[in-house]
Amino acid sequence: TSVAQIAILAGDGVGPEIMTAALAVLKAVSQDQFQYQLQAVPFGGIAIDQCGEPLPATTLATCQASDAVLLAAVGGPKWDLSPQRPEAGLLALRQALNLFANIRPTRITEANQHYSPLKLAAPVDFVIFRELTSGIYFGQPRTFSSEMAVDTMRYQREEIARIARLAFQFATTRSQHVTLVDKANVLASSRLWRQVVAAIAAEFPAVTYDTKYVDATAMQLIAHPEQFDVILTANLFGDILSDEAAEITGSLGTIPSISQGSQGPALYEPIHGSAPDIAGQSRANPIAMIRSVALMLVHSFKRTDLANEITTAIDAVMAAGIVTPDLGGSATTTAVTAAIINHIQESREVYATDHV
Amino acid sequence: TSVAQIAILAGDGVGPEIMTAALAVLKAVSQDQFQYQLQAVPFGGIAIDQCGEPLPATTLATCQASDAVLLAAVGGPKWDLSPQRPEAGLLALRQALNLFANIRPTRITEANQHYSPLKLAAPVDFVIFRELTSGIYFGQPRTFSSEMAVDTMRYQREEIARIARLAFQFATTRSQHVTLVDKANVLASSRLWRQVVAAIAAEFPAVTYDTKYVDATAMQLIAHPEQFDVILTANLFGDILSDEAAEITGSLGTIPSISQGSQGPALYEPIHGSAPDIAGQSRANPIAMIRSVALMLVHSFKRTDLANEITTAIDAVMAAGIVTPDLGGSATTTAVTAAIINHIQESREVYATDHV
Ligand SMILES: CC(C)[C@H](C(=O)O)[C@@H](O)C(=O)O
Ligand SMILES: CC(C)[C@H](C(=O)O)[C@@H](O)C(=O)O
Repeated sequence: TSVAQIAILAGDGVGPEIMTAALAVLKAVSQDQFQYQLQAVPFGGIAIDQCGEPLPATTLATCQASDAVLLAAVGGPKWDLSPQRPEAGLLALRQALNLFANIRPTRITEANQHYSPLKLAAPVDFVIFRELTSGIYFGQPRTFSSEMAVDTMRYQREEIARIARLAFQFATTRSQHVTLVDKANVLASSRLWRQVVAAIAAEFPAVTYDTKYVDATAMQLIAHPEQFDVILTANLFGDILSDEAAEITGSLGTIPSISQGSQGPALYEPIHGSAPDIAGQSRANPIAMIRSVALMLVHSFKRTDLANEITTAIDAVMAAGIVTPDLGGSATTTAVTAAIINHIQESREVYATDHV
Repeated sequence: TSVAQIAILAGDGVGPEIMTAALAVLKAVSQDQFQYQLQAVPFGGIAIDQCGEPLPATTLATCQASDAVLLAAVGGPKWDLSPQRPEAGLLALRQALNLFANIRPTRITEANQHYSPLKLAAPVDFVIFRELTSGIYFGQPRTFSSEMAVDTMRYQREEIARIARLAFQFATTRSQHVTLVDKANVLASSRLWRQVVAAIAAEFPAVTYDTKYVDATAMQLIAHPEQFDVILTANLFGDILSDEAAEITGSLGTIPSISQGSQGPALYEPIHGSAPDIAGQSRANPIAMIRSVALMLVHSFKRTDLANEITTAIDAVMAAGIVTPDLGGSATTTAVTAAIINHIQESREVYATDHV
């Protein structure tokens, strides 16, 4: 069997500590079961410091040659005045790997409703499909002077069609509903989204489909988040709404994401940022990064069995209240990680004993 | 004393019923105290039906010749396929009157915390200053074909400076803090906002100033809304965030707004839309429209005394539970309005009796 090649981009701030945590869990769960090789490469602010640019050519080459990319987080005030910013590396990497679909789940079960800042009436379970390699993040012209600045939100039919297909496909495995979020009462690009997505929707007769304005959606995510199944939206709207959606779980530090294209390695990363204010204190919640590893095992390596072991362990450890300060606990990053690994190992021993 | 000229744009959906309600309150409070003349003109969908365009020339001329404009709401599915949309009239009106600053308050007192969908720890009181006549709503080029569509987010230094000045000025009358919300890690226009706003901030040494990314702000409005005082932001971000902010009060139907320029009439309107699904049923909450009248009395006509009578009456009626279904009550639009008028009149009688 082949050895999985995984590129490791620990980045800045709390990035290195949560990456260390996630790799310890990967090691524990892989024992005799899954073979992989790690390639750690500089990315983001640390790459600016070491190589003068946030996405050095060797880092990109390593990612391109790998089967999957694990990314922790980049950025921090240290590089605020640097001519190149860590975030530019992230945007360049997304485009170079053609990671056009960013998939961000929001799930609030009855058991974790108490973490939510919302007075919830029902469980919440939806997924945001955010377009990631076009729109106003990349459109030209982009100009800047002290008198005037211009950004361009540009979309082409096929850029919309390919992510729409993924979203509808995904909806068939869930509750069969897609909501397109746009600003079609104002933007020309939103009108194109409506046209293209309506055509794709016709290819999926079993999936129901509606549209909502982005401002109304910002409300509805708070008022009735239980109504959503799959949300499909453009790059900028997805950036804003997926952060809002993460916050309604109350546990931002637990949410992973997938960024994928139609071929080549996918990238897995937490939704949260590099949190430079708590870096190096073992206060960061490692769960989003560990869940990113679980997502990788499922989607890049078809090892749902191993991913399930991780997820079960996380649920048990959270239920036992072994959580970091962001979730109201007092456990350290390393203590949470150790508890998760411990749970995985004990479950295996019980299983082995049962099967003697 | 001169007679105040007020343009009345009742618009579509629930617009006419809430406008009728608000004008009844204006009449009750003005009795012998404030002289005004109303000019009702078609606007939005109804203007498309009657005149073939959402902002007929006579409507605009009436607004321009008035001292203030009261607008209820426009739009509805009836005009979804119309070549001109009701919303286009709103955008054209904002630009024609040069209403570059849209001011949207979010206030959650201890008494109305129970309406909020959030588990709140502290009262909330902030104001959003949204740029309203530039940015991606108006930037050129704007192109559309079935293959590609383009919108342009363009800002000029002075467009940013003039609203920034208003926001900082306003902060001096409040808690002396301004937060600029942008996406400066990605957008060129956001970098210009940072540059220009930093210069304006220097003119207001007593006001503290910070910046936040729009995605982080979408989170923080849920996690810690009590941290904000004055939020200053671009047109599109303000659209999304002010709707999110309205929702955290749990009573969207109670929130008014001001749109103003540096001269000419200001425009007052509820934050909510035309709610075509409940139009004509006397179910719409009239409070946001009535509060818009109160804001007009303060800002356009310096009649804080009359505005206070309205506000006191609204508070009393809400406290008595006489509220529409959106707030969990069963009162009709007309019943809420009658209760407010009643409270105003009874308070005056008591006052008159006290002073015999
Ligand atoms: C860091 C920033 C450029 C990035 C984005 O806006 O895409 C981040 O907010 C995200 O959502 O991954
Ligand atoms: C109706 C629409 C064009 C408008 C806007 O986006 O400005 C509305 O959402 C608002 O916020 O007043």
